[in-house]
Amino acid sequence: MTQNIYDNPEFFAGYSQLGRSVAGLDGAAEWPALRAMLPELRGLDVLDLGCGFGWFCRWARAQGAAQVRGIDVSERMLARAVADTQDAAITYDRADLEVLELPDEAFDLVYSSLVFHYIADLDKLMSRIHRSLRSGGSLVFSVEHPIYTAPANPGWSPDPSGLKSWPVNNYLCEGPRATNWLTPGVIKQHRTLATYLNMLLWCGFTLCDIDEWGPTDAQIESRSELADERQRPPFLLLSAKR
Amino acid sequence: MTQNIYDNPEFFAGYSQLGRSVAGLDGAAEWPALRAMLPELRGLDVLDLGCGFGWFCRWARAQGAAQVRGIDVSERMLARAVADTQDAAITYDRADLEVLELPDEAFDLVYSSLVFHYIADLDKLMSRIHRSLRSGGSLVFSVEHPIYTAPANPGWSPDPSGLKSWPVNNYLCEGPRATNWLTPGVIKQHRTLATYLNMLLWCGFTLCDIDEWGPTDAQIESRSELADERQRPPFLLLSAKR
Repeated sequence: MTQNIYDNPEFFAGYSQLGRSVAGLDGAAEWPALRAMLPELRGLDVLDLGCGFGWFCRWARAQGAAQVRGIDVSERMLARAVADTQDAAITYDRADLEVLELPDEAFDLVYSSLVFHYIADLDKLMSRIHRSLRSGGSLVFSVEHPIYTAPANPGWSPDPSGLKSWPVNNYLCEGPRATNWLTPGVIKQHRTLATYLNMLLWCGFTLCDIDEWGPTDAQIESRSELADERQRPPFLLLSAKR
Repeated sequence: MTQNIYDNPEFFAGYSQLGRSVAGLDGAAEWPALRAMLPELRGLDVLDLGCGFGWFCRWARAQGAAQVRGIDVSERMLARAVADTQDAAITYDRADLEVLELPDEAFDLVYSSLVFHYIADLDKLMSRIHRSLRSGGSLVFSVEHPIYTAPANPGWSPDPSGLKSWPVNNYLCEGPRATNWLTPGVIKQHRTLATYLNMLLWCGFTLCDIDEWGPTDAQIESRSELADERQRPPFLLLSAKR
């Protein structure tokens, strides 16, 4: 089973204070780029893997999605999602994405934000997602970028000339990484960009768009601390079709 | 015009001493992986962009390719390619890939090894390559990996804990990089991995395989200095189809 760090009280308390937890989708700097990858949602059946507090589920319904199903492993997050949702067309289920069963050809869009880098057996989940999509259906997801997840000791450091740099090592050594984020010992799975892409191709997806996300000029102007993210992309955004 | 560094006498002298110049394809550690991406060559019409000394052109003919055309901007390299080739089915031409014209639907395979990162207007070249391929034809190429080309001052450095690392900066700032490789001031074009991939998709290519190349265990056993290349991939290998 995936480490359920979101139900750790200390982690949950920290996570609940993040901009993206307080302000929802608009609190996530990469959201406009991820949103731009989405199909027109009117009438679509949507699945959100790792739905957290349900922000995306409610937004998808507001865009006219027919049915939205949110799945998450965290009891605490789902409790808040349920409390914040008054809409019979949105359902939430608790499940471990490592062993998730999904109905065949049931969705027009599978969405997932910053969740797949927690999954050890992503091949299996990806092929289940592929089968769960109707022909022409879309998979749109974000993960922490492989450059971001690779290092044994992630963090900024000056390069030999003093420029702010992100020292990369272990990039080609895939597997778990224990990092200290909100609490010690959060386990993420590092995989290369090629692994993410080839996994999609092998499952039968057609790649549509790849975005190694960085802030726009306007975002840096209003939040100057985002400028560093141009040194190396924090997120990888992908869209593909069945 | 592309900087024609290969006709700089000092650069040419240095380049001629490299393993891949002396031993040909087998002198390049990434060659087995690149070769694995190639289609069966028997009867194919092949174009090699940046053919250098003609090693690949002659190998392709030995595999049964029907016609092989090699193009390079370097007069010195082409002179040696011509001198080393006795085969009427192989032709060499001198041209600048930035402004290259190619016949429509003339090739079954376009190949290029470690050349596209010198090209400023790669969009234009890529769409010309797409048009020059027959339906179902393949593009197989390698470039220096974007993690390798990104830094303002590329080189190894310890991370804060002392591990050998490749400090990445400027990854999302695409454009020329002046590096010191064999001679000072060699100009390469840094672009992100997403840019390479989206360029292929926008031209109409279907992606087949992506390899962020690193050495195999066997290669590290016979050449221990290759082990560092696992910290970050030096090369990106791609195959796509029209």
